[in-house]
Amino acid sequence: MSTVPPGAQQSHILPPAGLPFDERQTPPIRLYPLSNYTFGVKETQPEEDPSVKDRLRRLEEHYEKYGMRRTCEAVLVCHEHNHPHVLMLQIANAFFKLPGDYIPHDSDEIAGFKTRLNDRLSPPSTSSLSARDTPASADWAVHSTLAQWYRPNFETFMYPYLPPHVSRPKEVKKLYLIELPRTKVLSVPKNMKLLAVPLFELYDNSQRYGPQLSAIPHYLSRLRWEFVDEEGEVVAWTPGGKVDGRVEVKVLAGGEDGEDEGVKMEDAEL
Amino acid sequence: MSTVPPGAQQSHILPPAGLPFDERQTPPIRLYPLSNYTFGVKETQPEEDPSVKDRLRRLEEHYEKYGMRRTCEAVLVCHEHNHPHVLMLQIANAFFKLPGDYIPHDSDEIAGFKTRLNDRLSPPSTSSLSARDTPASADWAVHSTLAQWYRPNFETFMYPYLPPHVSRPKEVKKLYLIELPRTKVLSVPKNMKLLAVPLFELYDNSQRYGPQLSAIPHYLSRLRWEFVDEEGEVVAWTPGGKVDGRVEVKVLAGGEDGEDEGVKMEDAEL
Repeated sequence: MSTVPPGAQQSHILPPAGLPFDERQTPPIRLYPLSNYTFGVKETQPEEDPSVKDRLRRLEEHYEKYGMRRTCEAVLVCHEHNHPHVLMLQIANAFFKLPGDYIPHDSDEIAGFKTRLNDRLSPPSTSSLSARDTPASADWAVHSTLAQWYRPNFETFMYPYLPPHVSRPKEVKKLYLIELPRTKVLSVPKNMKLLAVPLFELYDNSQRYGPQLSAIPHYLSRLRWEFVDEEGEVVAWTPGGKVDGRVEVKVLAGGEDGEDEGVKMEDAEL
Repeated sequence: MSTVPPGAQQSHILPPAGLPFDERQTPPIRLYPLSNYTFGVKETQPEEDPSVKDRLRRLEEHYEKYGMRRTCEAVLVCHEHNHPHVLMLQIANAFFKLPGDYIPHDSDEIAGFKTRLNDRLSPPSTSSLSARDTPASADWAVHSTLAQWYRPNFETFMYPYLPPHVSRPKEVKKLYLIELPRTKVLSVPKNMKLLAVPLFELYDNSQRYGPQLSAIPHYLSRLRWEFVDEEGEVVAWTPGGKVDGRVEVKVLAGGEDGEDEGVKMEDAEL
């Protein structure tokens, strides 16, 4: 088995074919090259709170009035050289964060999340860039939940599970996979940088990215990928998939009807 | 919002109700108390290879003949005091491993995995314990893939992603969540111990459990739980769910039809 689909295979020395290994997984996620996306700049978006202490105090006020705060963050994935890269914001050349934020207490989860993503990353409607998106590519396709982090107290510590004896968490932060469309315009506030960080850079690097972001490779590891080039051709994929229906098998000689299945297995499943 | 369902609520000072926060997640997984399960002992199962070097040499032979090795491991979750615990084997009082193993090259993925789990944990058919399981509880309910780890070379290093330039991994290890039934008999080979390890013990503890097992809290963090007691009552759950249909709301006074929804929100969604 190989990451190279039959159409993109260059070697003639193929590894032995194997049986599929894709049970209990969602269908492959298609990743497009970073170069498919258009990046612009927009007005500065200052931090809502001047300090961590202020932020925690506001959380406390929110909790008293409305209960647990709901926070939504997006993991946007594209690829460079067939390796997944995550789009991440860097603020003041210092800390890293995913696009997203807490949502208002009276917002529907997904609608509130999309509003936050538009505020942060969509081109302003006055920008000429905004015309480049179709309604479909301007939208955010929220695929599935990748992780949940709990804040048990009005403190900075968060955990990827509810610690024992905590029955009323103060905040839950959900990370979702967003399926990026083939093309999209992303506008980044002037005071932030948008970075494409490869998985191998995040992995085992909590010192630089913190415990939540350095675990992104773990959250994503359950998924299957299909890497597409600028022309839309699948040039790599997660090994272990079923014989791909889009691959035409040419029977070169012979072949009774009953044997077709066997030919497919040997020739096309790499 | 709270982890305590209305029926189990003891405090009269409730936190403010909030809107649901359960979009893009699979339905809750029901966790049963550890005490629901019966543990037995069976014959010693020696390691297949005397050393890591031997194991890697056999992997090389497998790869040459059959291609990429497929390995399946099970994350079995139950609870103690409403905190998830993972069942794990310990060998020779030293290293920890999940139940499971590589599957034969000609095995179907799920069937081969279940055979491995039966070999490792099911009571031998000669044991009186085996009669305690029904056909349903003797089976393994493979819920979904939690993670995939790739071995790029015939070496011990594995990664939760395919490193760049690796097109032919030598082994893929898949970790699956198994939904444990209400009761089940598990028989453990004499040379191993079966441990129930809480998530908070695994978290951030790769020194003791290694990179794959210490990340189990991350893999599981996308899921919603329902903790059930020995009587089958839901005594805790992941906060942020919708109003539970099984919870009967008693309208104590008044209430026009149009207001019913509002009453539910205030009284039942904690």
